[in-house]
Amino acid sequence: MSWMTPKRAFLGAAAAEGGTKLNAFDNALLKLGIGNVNLVKLSSVIPAHIEWMEKVHDVPIGMLLPTVYSHIESDEPGMTISAALGVGISEKNEGGLIYEYSGYCTKEEAEEMVRKMVEEGFAKRGWKLGEFRVASAEITVKDKPAAAVAVVVMFPY
Amino acid sequence: MSWMTPKRAFLGAAAAEGGTKLNAFDNALLKLGIGNVNLVKLSSVIPAHIEWMEKVHDVPIGMLLPTVYSHIESDEPGMTISAALGVGISEKNEGGLIYEYSGYCTKEEAEEMVRKMVEEGFAKRGWKLGEFRVASAEITVKDKPAAAVAVVVMFPY
Amino acid sequence: MSWMTPKRAFLGAAAAEGGTKLNAFDNALLKLGIGNVNLVKLSSVIPAHIEWMEKVHDVPIGMLLPTVYSHIESDEPGMTISAALGVGISEKNEGGLIYEYSGYCTKEEAEEMVRKMVEEGFAKRGWKLGEFRVASAEITVKDKPAAAVAVVVMFPY
Repeated sequence: MSWMTPKRAFLGAAAAEGGTKLNAFDNALLKLGIGNVNLVKLSSVIPAHIEWMEKVHDVPIGMLLPTVYSHIESDEPGMTISAALGVGISEKNEGGLIYEYSGYCTKEEAEEMVRKMVEEGFAKRGWKLGEFRVASAEITVKDKPAAAVAVVVMFPY
Repeated sequence: MSWMTPKRAFLGAAAAEGGTKLNAFDNALLKLGIGNVNLVKLSSVIPAHIEWMEKVHDVPIGMLLPTVYSHIESDEPGMTISAALGVGISEKNEGGLIYEYSGYCTKEEAEEMVRKMVEEGFAKRGWKLGEFRVASAEITVKDKPAAAVAVVVMFPY
Repeated sequence: MSWMTPKRAFLGAAAAEGGTKLNAFDNALLKLGIGNVNLVKLSSVIPAHIEWMEKVHDVPIGMLLPTVYSHIESDEPGMTISAALGVGISEKNEGGLIYEYSGYCTKEEAEEMVRKMVEEGFAKRGWKLGEFRVASAEITVKDKPAAAVAVVVMFPY
């Protein structure tokens, strides 16, 4: 059954402001093209032979999509928040690993954290890293709540 | 595949006490008729043309049901806790949005929060609000742990 | 559809160290044979007539598996952390309940917590407890982050 082992995936990140933390999160999802679907949170493994999409095409409103996500919200003016996902793809695209990080830091720091986690995950499994991808978003809170979100959305077809 | 874009939904809320916080949560789910199924947590979008159910009918024990839920537990005597879900349905039932809130507050305050979030979500998308529904539960902790839960359970058929 | 009401399940627990808390969690999943799948978190009910597996057999990398899990991570040297799942099976295997606990405690304490929760859940439903199973893991943090994880992984076939 195709929902069970996804075929395609999209990696992206965005930051946004909103009237509340939840609206800020929602607005970041809208920027990523996934504000009108239902995210089902996953732990974080890439199926073999996944095909990467450049963008999220139209999907039915309310469709359930398995998604790995990292997110942080804040309403403390002056604070910088970041979220990142690091994706390691094995040689020959036989599978991959996704690690998440979010915190009060710059996106470069969040990217460095997920890079280290991907390296450790591959070393632990004895897998060879064929490709490393990262998506990160950073925002400095002004007068409204803000959110930073990074996602890998998986598609059953 | 029907699991992927739900067809029917149930909106409800309940509060309960229990011997532990998790049992209190469980007891609130039992009141809602969903204590014997497996909730798969969703972010929060209503598919187009959803049909609303008045109650949850018999479902197999352990069935996986995609569910948006807001919940809070407390074991601090004297504290009042509330959970709410606000559901906005677009004109012509072409989709909808669910926003969640829970906290140390009254249910009226939680309802007001989700109402604002629904309004912002609709404004951001340029959608017209056809109908607003809300479910909320409130409980004041006495001598046992207590939970307040609000849910939208989605059904594949 | 088989994803919707699982047929088989695996109960296990493990603890591990890692370079980060997330890698420690990942390493514990690897010990359990589920480091290369995607866990979809469930609330916690056992379907009727479930068949228990002794171990997790090969599954495709990145497959989505509904899983109940309890976990805790720590990087505070000297602290002992534990995670447990308690599983109560009704007489005649007509369904069951899973309760989770994790905290800064020994695994015996975590086991005692889940046992009590299972008993309350059965009493509340008027179900008769046919069998009680428990899985727990404990680790004392040394110089690296550590994780304790207990899981019930459910299989659609």
